[in-house]
Amino acid sequence: MSNQQDGPADACCVTPPLLREPLTKPAAAEMAKKLKALADPVRLRLFSAIASHSGGEACVCDISGGIDVSQPTVSHHLKVLRAAGLLTSERRASWVYYAVVPEALREIAALLDLDAAALAGATA
Amino acid sequence: MSNQQDGPADACCVTPPLLREPLTKPAAAEMAKKLKALADPVRLRLFSAIASHSGGEACVCDISGGIDVSQPTVSHHLKVLRAAGLLTSERRASWVYYAVVPEALREIAALLDLDAAALAGATA
Repeated sequence: MSNQQDGPADACCVTPPLLREPLTKPAAAEMAKKLKALADPVRLRLFSAIASHSGGEACVCDISGGIDVSQPTVSHHLKVLRAAGLLTSERRASWVYYAVVPEALREIAALLDLDAAALAGATA
Repeated sequence: MSNQQDGPADACCVTPPLLREPLTKPAAAEMAKKLKALADPVRLRLFSAIASHSGGEACVCDISGGIDVSQPTVSHHLKVLRAAGLLTSERRASWVYYAVVPEALREIAALLDLDAAALAGATA
């Protein structure tokens, strides 16, 4: 029951802003996974289409129209986003609905929090 | 002199939060480049080491100590971050100093701005 601060399991939850202190190795590995999942133009557009859809969720039928890739490619990209913890999915009748995981976005945003970190320059 | 809103040159500066409206193709391509550069554990740690260093800048001599990769590997990763517009570099005497580009971070943070977007759910 010790107070673990840098184990991989905790890394995702205690990530300090990039600018406040150097990232630990496990925190960097955890964050890189999420950023890698987002770091693709098609995945970014799919993610954005789901996130901005009414209710913060969408099925493939709602989003693939505006994005010029095949249905299997869309499915592959959605799988990558889900595996990275950025989306959840739920089957309803014959469609799978995807929803954004707000905590995952918040975690990345917190890492890049310029206000909290007030840029290292201010403390120089 | 028309008011271009979705040209590649403007994409970086008009990126709306991911959750407010679907990302355009050029905005997604531009953002994916930056995220891809950050989406590597070693690069994240190097970037964080520079960003959190006194004055918001550092030379390789300051940061490579805590990160267990070779000097050429460090140089390669710094080059990738610089090419993505996340770092600037300046040679002084025999060392190259790297500094964070705050606008680049701000741009990514704005994309993930949960408060501004207030999650699509709120408007459902």
